[in-house]
Amino acid sequence: MQPLPIGVIGASGYAGVEATRILALHPRVELRLAASDRWQGESLLQRTGLACGGLRYAPQDRAESLARECSVVFLATPAEVSLKLAPPLLAAGVRVIDLSGAFRLRDTAAFRKHYGLEHPNPELLPEAVYGLPELGARLAGARLVANPGCYATAAALALWPLVAGDLVEPGSLIVNAASGTTGAGRKGTEDLSFSEVDEDFRAYRVLRHQHTPEISQTLGGAALTFTAHLLPLKRGILATCYARLRKGQDPAAVGAAFTHKYAGSTFVRLLGSPDEVSLRAVAGTNRCDLAVACADGVVVVVAAIDNLVKGAAGQAVQNLNLAMGWPESAGLDTLRGIHP
Amino acid sequence: MQPLPIGVIGASGYAGVEATRILALHPRVELRLAASDRWQGESLLQRTGLACGGLRYAPQDRAESLARECSVVFLATPAEVSLKLAPPLLAAGVRVIDLSGAFRLRDTAAFRKHYGLEHPNPELLPEAVYGLPELGARLAGARLVANPGCYATAAALALWPLVAGDLVEPGSLIVNAASGTTGAGRKGTEDLSFSEVDEDFRAYRVLRHQHTPEISQTLGGAALTFTAHLLPLKRGILATCYARLRKGQDPAAVGAAFTHKYAGSTFVRLLGSPDEVSLRAVAGTNRCDLAVACADGVVVVVAAIDNLVKGAAGQAVQNLNLAMGWPESAGLDTLRGIHP
Amino acid sequence: MQPLPIGVIGASGYAGVEATRILALHPRVELRLAASDRWQGESLLQRTGLACGGLRYAPQDRAESLARECSVVFLATPAEVSLKLAPPLLAAGVRVIDLSGAFRLRDTAAFRKHYGLEHPNPELLPEAVYGLPELGARLAGARLVANPGCYATAAALALWPLVAGDLVEPGSLIVNAASGTTGAGRKGTEDLSFSEVDEDFRAYRVLRHQHTPEISQTLGGAALTFTAHLLPLKRGILATCYARLRKGQDPAAVGAAFTHKYAGSTFVRLLGSPDEVSLRAVAGTNRCDLAVACADGVVVVVAAIDNLVKGAAGQAVQNLNLAMGWPESAGLDTLRGIHP
Amino acid sequence: MQPLPIGVIGASGYAGVEATRILALHPRVELRLAASDRWQGESLLQRTGLACGGLRYAPQDRAESLARECSVVFLATPAEVSLKLAPPLLAAGVRVIDLSGAFRLRDTAAFRKHYGLEHPNPELLPEAVYGLPELGARLAGARLVANPGCYATAAALALWPLVAGDLVEPGSLIVNAASGTTGAGRKGTEDLSFSEVDEDFRAYRVLRHQHTPEISQTLGGAALTFTAHLLPLKRGILATCYARLRKGQDPAAVGAAFTHKYAGSTFVRLLGSPDEVSLRAVAGTNRCDLAVACADGVVVVVAAIDNLVKGAAGQAVQNLNLAMGWPESAGLDTLRGIHP
Repeated sequence: MQPLPIGVIGASGYAGVEATRILALHPRVELRLAASDRWQGESLLQRTGLACGGLRYAPQDRAESLARECSVVFLATPAEVSLKLAPPLLAAGVRVIDLSGAFRLRDTAAFRKHYGLEHPNPELLPEAVYGLPELGARLAGARLVANPGCYATAAALALWPLVAGDLVEPGSLIVNAASGTTGAGRKGTEDLSFSEVDEDFRAYRVLRHQHTPEISQTLGGAALTFTAHLLPLKRGILATCYARLRKGQDPAAVGAAFTHKYAGSTFVRLLGSPDEVSLRAVAGTNRCDLAVACADGVVVVVAAIDNLVKGAAGQAVQNLNLAMGWPESAGLDTLRGIHP
Repeated sequence: MQPLPIGVIGASGYAGVEATRILALHPRVELRLAASDRWQGESLLQRTGLACGGLRYAPQDRAESLARECSVVFLATPAEVSLKLAPPLLAAGVRVIDLSGAFRLRDTAAFRKHYGLEHPNPELLPEAVYGLPELGARLAGARLVANPGCYATAAALALWPLVAGDLVEPGSLIVNAASGTTGAGRKGTEDLSFSEVDEDFRAYRVLRHQHTPEISQTLGGAALTFTAHLLPLKRGILATCYARLRKGQDPAAVGAAFTHKYAGSTFVRLLGSPDEVSLRAVAGTNRCDLAVACADGVVVVVAAIDNLVKGAAGQAVQNLNLAMGWPESAGLDTLRGIHP
Repeated sequence: MQPLPIGVIGASGYAGVEATRILALHPRVELRLAASDRWQGESLLQRTGLACGGLRYAPQDRAESLARECSVVFLATPAEVSLKLAPPLLAAGVRVIDLSGAFRLRDTAAFRKHYGLEHPNPELLPEAVYGLPELGARLAGARLVANPGCYATAAALALWPLVAGDLVEPGSLIVNAASGTTGAGRKGTEDLSFSEVDEDFRAYRVLRHQHTPEISQTLGGAALTFTAHLLPLKRGILATCYARLRKGQDPAAVGAAFTHKYAGSTFVRLLGSPDEVSLRAVAGTNRCDLAVACADGVVVVVAAIDNLVKGAAGQAVQNLNLAMGWPESAGLDTLRGIHP
Repeated sequence: MQPLPIGVIGASGYAGVEATRILALHPRVELRLAASDRWQGESLLQRTGLACGGLRYAPQDRAESLARECSVVFLATPAEVSLKLAPPLLAAGVRVIDLSGAFRLRDTAAFRKHYGLEHPNPELLPEAVYGLPELGARLAGARLVANPGCYATAAALALWPLVAGDLVEPGSLIVNAASGTTGAGRKGTEDLSFSEVDEDFRAYRVLRHQHTPEISQTLGGAALTFTAHLLPLKRGILATCYARLRKGQDPAAVGAAFTHKYAGSTFVRLLGSPDEVSLRAVAGTNRCDLAVACADGVVVVVAAIDNLVKGAAGQAVQNLNLAMGWPESAGLDTLRGIHP
């Protein structure tokens, strides 16, 4: 079988680097394009240690034209860049998997509020598939995939069985999540410098985080309270989620809902107790580990993902596989994890 | 004025080390005893870098008799050891400030459940003052102080204005807290080894943490959900707390309650937004930084302390000062913080 | 082709975990045995996230008999255990790749001094191949491989071109190396606890480190000064090495010697400047990155490896490949690195 | 006694913050000026948690005129800024303690080479006292103090007894040092971001570090090889130094030289073995811990300091004390250390 020609635009950002590393060893694709101004002209071998057939980074301003020779392109770019690149690429018959927030929100008013601009291509939104496969995304044949954000991935996987099963009080949902620093991208700002982040832990954008509407949308519009925190580590999101059990609801139904939902899942692993869920166990993998506990009418779900893999590049490859009709774990089953 | 002779038993544990370092420079006390089997015979100078008049660590089995020559003794010992030492010392006229959980819970049934033994001295419990000065503890002249736990200190300072003002729905309280590793004490266990903790973050004892009843007691018995997490850093507790605003309650009353409560406080600093609260700002100080936000009927309070200072040794010195009628910040105003 | 049946004894130590993770995805082997008392009865899937055909950890006391059904066994055990297991396994026709120091030193007097016991099987030493392929180890068909230590691997790769080319003053060699905590193995000791290691850096066993004779042996017996340091990170060894250029020696010969030696190497990457060598670039890979600089008669070589991969399990697989006549990078070319 | 009015210019840099925190509690001074554009208008209480009599940060462009009302000014500014500020302040009768490299090098050619400009005030250099008190700096009455760099402080304290006693081979000196990230100052650059520094360790400016001539100057012009490394921690420099014992020299003389030199020192603590020297023990103190070992003709000295205290602000206060004829440890004896 001919390998599928594929490209990554924004290849030197942290999600872009992870995407090139996974795609470079994916058995069914051939990396034809990696665009990055920061590293243009350098070889992928030099930056990733992977041969990639001698490929070198191309400048961003040639990315669009080079991408037309690919069947699929990953956009690991800021939302504004994705908004510019996606329409012409789709028009040229290239499938697009966008890792930014450009096509995630179906509600253009929410988009305007949180991204500060009118959505320039609302006509593409109905076609964009929000790529969270475990929640039933219809990816087969998708031309435009809106790859979920990292916080939304963890929160939605944690809360969906409760919401879908109508097991908890509406309005009682709380997502208390913490992320490693790579979630903020490759940036040189004082706030993200080692001297400021090390030995620190703090919340940010409390009660006004821009990912709240995305999480809510994944849960069918459910109201929720979301708090993000910055961890002194590189990779991982741990979401500790709370909900109030519906009056009269049998607590046993809670565990059963999770088992039913995730028993056959390739990438969600249900553990026996929230104490067993940890970032170290999922780091470097496309897995989401989660567990639920319930007592005195309170449900606690803890979910862990690697924000760069299941929260970004790994899930994008999972979506690629499903869009192409390939095995869901192609190219992802050699991700071994990195603990210790 | 004659300096007050004072002792620290359990002087090589992390809280004990911090206590000796503060007391060594306290202008009104003279450190006469530092007991530790681990370091017995070594000089305090060697271990803490502070002269302490040439004092050397005494063995634990001589601690009780040596302590009788002190006016006040800090017990930085496990609860079982404190339970043995406190009664004879009190009988000998020595004041006791106990940093363990031995005398914190007024409910002996809760004590039995969480500590796994019948309380041997229930007759001392009515006399024991739970030493959280900001919540109105009556410390003047106290003979036995039960120094609060670190999680309880952060949670109680965060939630007390809401509970005392009856501003939030009973049963809606959630304390989502994260602690640095020194909270677990000086221990050589695989779970606390650098290779296991570094780059990890996890919850532990979910829905069954032994400090839940202590937190509840500080809040007048309010029901609450408490989740503890382990952070890859040494010092600090950040408590992100949630509550549902009582129906019809004016949100403006929330901020006002915190201002009213903490405006004149020496060691609680109210900040403008939860985003400004961080562990780095309180590390090495006896301060609790906190801030509150409210939207859509949800109240979020974020509180930060150094678990070894305001969460242990510093608060013990604050309690000593108040018990002796000294200025509240004696010996604590030279703690400068350690960021960066 | 039939996959080769293989076993790992000591499968829950950090090197053992890494070995099982690599072998589980090696295209030419089938993992038949993973022995660990700590995890006995648990599935490999549970602990490593890799299916391994449903394999479960076997108890150590059954390891020897189970290993007889394997063609090759990795001993990721302490030297004393390897000394017990290797002879009967070899006698039963099983090839042994030993990751401990049991068979590394050819000099039995040095072994006695540093391991505190008389070598029980000196007759095996001539047969044991010291498995540093880049230095010319003759691995084809080897029955017993002594897999090099992590410090020795980094130091030998850094200094060999200088020593072999007789470019530097004898006796001027200094290896100043620093290792992450996993180099000490999976241990629960106070010294390796997070609270003690975090924010610290220190030297240990100065001028009396037990790996000094091994490094010297790899360099043909050259005298050298070796200092080890403990880094507050999990994986990696950086060796900063110094030597004095031989009088009259052309400095240009230094760079040429390294280029000549490593130009065609699969796993050693020669970089343009020591400033470009970093632990993050090699973490999670079987690569050694190194670079040399020379000025005013002083040569500085900086080498970086992942201590668990090129310094242990990865090099063991490289040795397996060469012993079996397979491609040198079989099973290692899917190790992608983990930065960030 | 009237407190001495003092100012800090560059008060929001890491060394400047540390200086204000120490001076704020110094018993003989009154902080009258803290200049910082970044924090101008904010109170010192807000940023440091210390009252400082209600003082607020002044803008840098008013710093010079405000500094004229101080008796002494600390310049915690880049060298170019110090070069502008020092001459007019000195002319106005204000004593200057400069924490930059502006006045450290007596050799103007070396200054030109490493700082890229002609020294604008060479006439001040003979007057500038290089403030390393333990090496005999004549600070009494000094008007201009060139406060030593952090690497030079650690290296000079480690090697001085060997060089002064002529115990080692000239040209055999090697300083292999590693620094925490605060040594690079408060910066928002990609290279110093948490995601890049965490879990990494690397050398930088190998064989061309700009602090080499300063170290050499402190050692009477001795030639040496210096390598700097970046550690994933905030505070501390560990210098592991090597030298070759002079032929025929009695090794016992080495230890004796260190004991003789540092026995009565306030801030240098000589330990029994290099294994006992650690960053954690000196963090937050003005101490230099060091130890020496010698075997087979090789001398190894390990020295540890906190780069922001003994390596910057603390040593500046020590120099202030000596310049004013005060006790050497005034204001420094309440620095307790921060481990854990």
